[in-house]
Amino acid sequence: MFWTTILFAALAPAVAEKVPPVTPSSIVAEAPAAAWKEIPADDLLQFEVKGRGTVVIQLSPDFAPVHVENIRLLARNGFWKGAAIYRVQDNYVVQWGNNETEKPWPRGVVPSPPPEYDRPLAGLTISPLGFPDPFAPKVGFADGWPVAYNPAAGWATLTHCYGYVGAGRGLSPDSGVGAELYAVLGQPTRHMDRNLAIVGRVIEGMEHMSALPRGTGPLGFYEDSKSAVPLISVTLASSLPRAARPRFQVMDTSSESFARYVRSRANRLDEFYEVPAGGVDVCAVQVPVRRAP
Amino acid sequence: MFWTTILFAALAPAVAEKVPPVTPSSIVAEAPAAAWKEIPADDLLQFEVKGRGTVVIQLSPDFAPVHVENIRLLARNGFWKGAAIYRVQDNYVVQWGNNETEKPWPRGVVPSPPPEYDRPLAGLTISPLGFPDPFAPKVGFADGWPVAYNPAAGWATLTHCYGYVGAGRGLSPDSGVGAELYAVLGQPTRHMDRNLAIVGRVIEGMEHMSALPRGTGPLGFYEDSKSAVPLISVTLASSLPRAARPRFQVMDTSSESFARYVRSRANRLDEFYEVPAGGVDVCAVQVPVRRAP
Repeated sequence: MFWTTILFAALAPAVAEKVPPVTPSSIVAEAPAAAWKEIPADDLLQFEVKGRGTVVIQLSPDFAPVHVENIRLLARNGFWKGAAIYRVQDNYVVQWGNNETEKPWPRGVVPSPPPEYDRPLAGLTISPLGFPDPFAPKVGFADGWPVAYNPAAGWATLTHCYGYVGAGRGLSPDSGVGAELYAVLGQPTRHMDRNLAIVGRVIEGMEHMSALPRGTGPLGFYEDSKSAVPLISVTLASSLPRAARPRFQVMDTSSESFARYVRSRANRLDEFYEVPAGGVDVCAVQVPVRRAP
Repeated sequence: MFWTTILFAALAPAVAEKVPPVTPSSIVAEAPAAAWKEIPADDLLQFEVKGRGTVVIQLSPDFAPVHVENIRLLARNGFWKGAAIYRVQDNYVVQWGNNETEKPWPRGVVPSPPPEYDRPLAGLTISPLGFPDPFAPKVGFADGWPVAYNPAAGWATLTHCYGYVGAGRGLSPDSGVGAELYAVLGQPTRHMDRNLAIVGRVIEGMEHMSALPRGTGPLGFYEDSKSAVPLISVTLASSLPRAARPRFQVMDTSSESFARYVRSRANRLDEFYEVPAGGVDVCAVQVPVRRAP
């Protein structure tokens, strides 16, 4: 009852001096400048979804370097002129590109990249999440990214969380060039971990893709190609004049702010939440990203 | 290399006698009639999202009996005439109802239901998932539903998975009547487990809500009430003439078919997936539901 009274008191406007509760949002809002890292302009890919708005993707060169370099070359060479979103499968993925047309690769693109589905654990500094994961022996965060890893086997992989972007591929064991991309738009598709290459994540504007009509064909493909939603100006931030570049920061996942943020995510306790889980999923943490202030 | 060759061979039309791989879909398709249970008509709530299509929700009376009975009374008495979807927050929830208008409750509605955020574990027959969960000591399936549970403390709760429907509530510790409902539309919001009452799940037509424009106000509320999307004919299947009732079946989660389905989800291995995770999240399992054949 005491607790209940406190909760009600918190709502009374008269108690103006009350200290607001610590929440994931308040920790992000109060994090010092040192807890944030600028995302390099060469790691930011942006495009406009026609009639919807702008999507910004942070690329992940430390995890899929060959695919990411392919994507940069494709962007710089205008490969995605005429590209469109052609697949939206509910609770699964949204997918875009030139839909397997026979357009030739720009010079320098590696047509058969290695399968960058995981990478050596060595070389990564991981802050372990500290809670169990149903899909992998361990999960944690490395340089701003959520990772699943296996200390015994020595691999680490980015996790297929909401908004994470991977390189589409066919049935064959090659890993896709990076020309056809998908983003997860529902339940994390963690069964894809180590089976497809994650090349980045949507850091702004995911709602311009997630709110698109679902495709009614098999696997959510649009049955009529006229339904495909054009992408306009697929551009690397580094290709823009300096003043026009979007600038983003990601929270340093080795910072004390991030550790507090994770603890708060795992122990939601404020006016609204009264029974904390005491744990959180690696994808539910959602690494904070913001526009540079 | 041998495996690679097999994969290519599988694509060759000449190899017509090849046995198709076992996948979650093939297990569902081949499950015997005995592996399916009819959903009672009184547990099916349906409505049309104006201009979009029909949504069908399976109610969960074994977990939130008072809320579910409220919902039945609200539906039977036309309480949701004029109701609308007024909140769509990306990667979080879609929410609908009369948006806290002062409409009086129909007779019989319990205005302050008990907090049916969890229930006693006793009385449930649970098939454990068998993989760790970051949010709860144990997870599994009970009578067609995903549950998190704590054998030591003796509670069980439905899990906030994609498409799962809960009763909205205010800050106060009361649990909401069941008049304002939300459905999860992204990363499972498992931190809500045991803090809000799950009253059911969307079993058909989730795409008619998940593809709606995201609200641009705080928490994804539509800033202009004219943006709200009307709900038409919110009806229990049991209120319809027998011939007009939708009929659904859910896979018996204690069946051998379901056990095989879970194993297949945890060990995706077919032409496309070559590295099975060896585990799966309780929400990623997605209990199979189908129209009655």
